[in-house]
Amino acid sequence: MKIIEFPSKCEWPSLLQRPFPDAGVLSAAVAEIISRVRDHGDLALFEYAKEFDGLEIDDLIVHEDEFASACEEVPEELKRAIKTAKKNIEKFHMLDSADPAPRVETMPGVLCWRRRLPIQRVGLYVPAGSAPLFSTVLMLAIPAKIAGCQEVIMCSPTGPDGRISAAVLYAARFCGVERVFKIGGAQAVAAMAFGTATIPRVDKIFGPGNRYVTEAKLQVMRFGAAIDMPAGPSELAVLADDSSVPAFVAADLLSQAEHGGDSQVILVATSREFVDDVTGQIEGQLEALPRAAICRSALEHSRAIIVGSIDEAISLVNEYAPEHLIVATRNAADDALRVVNAGSVFLGNFSCESAGDYASGTNHTLPTNGSVRGISGVTVESFTKSITYQQLSESGLENLGPTIEVMARAEGLEAHRRAVSIRRDWAKRGRE
Amino acid sequence: MKIIEFPSKCEWPSLLQRPFPDAGVLSAAVAEIISRVRDHGDLALFEYAKEFDGLEIDDLIVHEDEFASACEEVPEELKRAIKTAKKNIEKFHMLDSADPAPRVETMPGVLCWRRRLPIQRVGLYVPAGSAPLFSTVLMLAIPAKIAGCQEVIMCSPTGPDGRISAAVLYAARFCGVERVFKIGGAQAVAAMAFGTATIPRVDKIFGPGNRYVTEAKLQVMRFGAAIDMPAGPSELAVLADDSSVPAFVAADLLSQAEHGGDSQVILVATSREFVDDVTGQIEGQLEALPRAAICRSALEHSRAIIVGSIDEAISLVNEYAPEHLIVATRNAADDALRVVNAGSVFLGNFSCESAGDYASGTNHTLPTNGSVRGISGVTVESFTKSITYQQLSESGLENLGPTIEVMARAEGLEAHRRAVSIRRDWAKRGRE
Repeated sequence: MKIIEFPSKCEWPSLLQRPFPDAGVLSAAVAEIISRVRDHGDLALFEYAKEFDGLEIDDLIVHEDEFASACEEVPEELKRAIKTAKKNIEKFHMLDSADPAPRVETMPGVLCWRRRLPIQRVGLYVPAGSAPLFSTVLMLAIPAKIAGCQEVIMCSPTGPDGRISAAVLYAARFCGVERVFKIGGAQAVAAMAFGTATIPRVDKIFGPGNRYVTEAKLQVMRFGAAIDMPAGPSELAVLADDSSVPAFVAADLLSQAEHGGDSQVILVATSREFVDDVTGQIEGQLEALPRAAICRSALEHSRAIIVGSIDEAISLVNEYAPEHLIVATRNAADDALRVVNAGSVFLGNFSCESAGDYASGTNHTLPTNGSVRGISGVTVESFTKSITYQQLSESGLENLGPTIEVMARAEGLEAHRRAVSIRRDWAKRGRE
Repeated sequence: MKIIEFPSKCEWPSLLQRPFPDAGVLSAAVAEIISRVRDHGDLALFEYAKEFDGLEIDDLIVHEDEFASACEEVPEELKRAIKTAKKNIEKFHMLDSADPAPRVETMPGVLCWRRRLPIQRVGLYVPAGSAPLFSTVLMLAIPAKIAGCQEVIMCSPTGPDGRISAAVLYAARFCGVERVFKIGGAQAVAAMAFGTATIPRVDKIFGPGNRYVTEAKLQVMRFGAAIDMPAGPSELAVLADDSSVPAFVAADLLSQAEHGGDSQVILVATSREFVDDVTGQIEGQLEALPRAAICRSALEHSRAIIVGSIDEAISLVNEYAPEHLIVATRNAADDALRVVNAGSVFLGNFSCESAGDYASGTNHTLPTNGSVRGISGVTVESFTKSITYQQLSESGLENLGPTIEVMARAEGLEAHRRAVSIRRDWAKRGRE
């Protein structure tokens, strides 16, 4: 972990710089995958399974007996934990499922309103990687079901044994996902964007993944598919003062670092002594961790930044705009109120990031790479869309018509103007 | 306009097919522009102005005297129209500016909440094209100001005279946009995504544009910039029965067609006679239109589809998922309730699309290319983001901790588990 003491504000941008993606080669490879899946459907998926994973397959569907044996395999203790997590996540997410459908008469005879509707067909991508990420199933399927999406499908890559982990399948069924497909990577995203003989086309694609998956999500937007967000390497910033507990902070930084060598970890503190205590703790705790090598690699490009005041620390955090932020300061509640750029915030010494990752109730699908400045994590709303409506009466058009006519003419759009005047003339003739 | 009678459902997909974008060449050209602007800032912008537009410039800023003379140039009649439109748009958009900040204790000692905040810095892109699109300024700047965004900037290309149209500048100032920059195209998007010496970096980029602008918006998402939506050619579907007025429907189809040769226009009707009346009306009305050539080119790939019932018509419209939908049927209100995929819906014979384009109050920045299935048009919420929070007390972590520990272990993330257990052990020692 690199330690930087009292950097000047002009050094902040380079200090907080995230690595720029090298999209060139990746982008062309993904474009090729997307076009092959678009044109050849399932056949392309079978070919990629062979080419990329050495798997000979001709069936992508997870069948009933597979769900049943998954359910038997998952230990009771884990089932209980998943149940508790689901209850908390549901409780929190129910908060924003209101549908006010507000109406307003903007002018006499001009009625406007908005209706929020569930997105009909959604596709959840659940990566496998080094571990079965069943928590992602909870975080995506629960809000999808609360929103009322008609069709919720899931794609997930299999292991070398051609199976999806039992915990993932169990969580999918437990959260109401009926259909699961054994396919991963950019080709799974393409399959959900266009549909194949087996996999239905969906309206919006959710879920994290590797760089190929993220690139594919960005590219299918060109074809009318919606996506939750471009997910990148996970990030954590910890804001600490002398009331923070070094052992806790070290444990939190390590929990983020173990996600992958490209994880971003930043500690912002107000004293050198505290940072030294944390780095000492990190060394001690690292020894007991099975993923120590991954942690070390993430820590290599991580930074501990010492600043002169909490105010400066908060400015620095807002500039960095982390996915996760732990505010472990004396006045955590007040300090957190001044944070304007973060995905999810954890307050005080007992709110570890892993609480939000699994079971506090908030959603762990959050924007990375600084994009929390402009977008939000997944909510129930992410699984809805809204339609606006307007209904003008004859007198409504008489009231608003002249305004539209003047504006349309000034934009040089004569047919827009005439769509109004032809109606006003007709109404006038009727009145005469 | 191609007329298709009673197509079978298996013909729908090809009938409703939008042209696939040919992204290859475009994508590489845009990537090059983005990387040059990222690396060279203003200098790259000056070079592109020369290369693409033959403009020798060394200043991108719209200065005070330019705003002042724009204000003088705009005729009073247009100022009044803009004022009326602004009032209506504000009235409608104020509906969704509530900030409930709901809190929930998901478990004893586990408090979760969500806070909605304005996005701090937003950039509005206002295309110029063949006409000054000051209505786009209203549709983007008004919700940005209601949301409370701290910094609202605008980029717009100039004409060959090096100026932005007076109406656009007037509308910008009238709606509270302080800083406007004379720059358009993919390079303007790149400038807002990364910032240059002159143009500030923004957190989210809004606004329609040509294919280069849209491609650039998609590509800067890789670098953490957020965008409103990928905007494509504009679309209108009209749902009509024998209570609709052929002259009105023809005028509406033409108002959509005049946007550009790539505009999409679809008429879904229940009788051949009605369609013949409409096409007759179109021919008659076309003659008086200054943009008749553009309309004709759009109409060439437009379709009138005759179906057996209103039910089938509604299914077809939901399958197509148009940006704009006019429901000009006898039971418009009931029929519109069954529409689940559309951007903005216009009910009855007096609700022409141009009402929503300019001044009814709803937003005209809407998804195209079928993406209304998964995303919404611009709202005040589009200019906000939300942060989630969680605060666990010592007993809260004691209650939730075992759940987290079981789940983290099952995902093979030991450091996640330890972030919990190190705190529980510490608390236990304190209690002893």
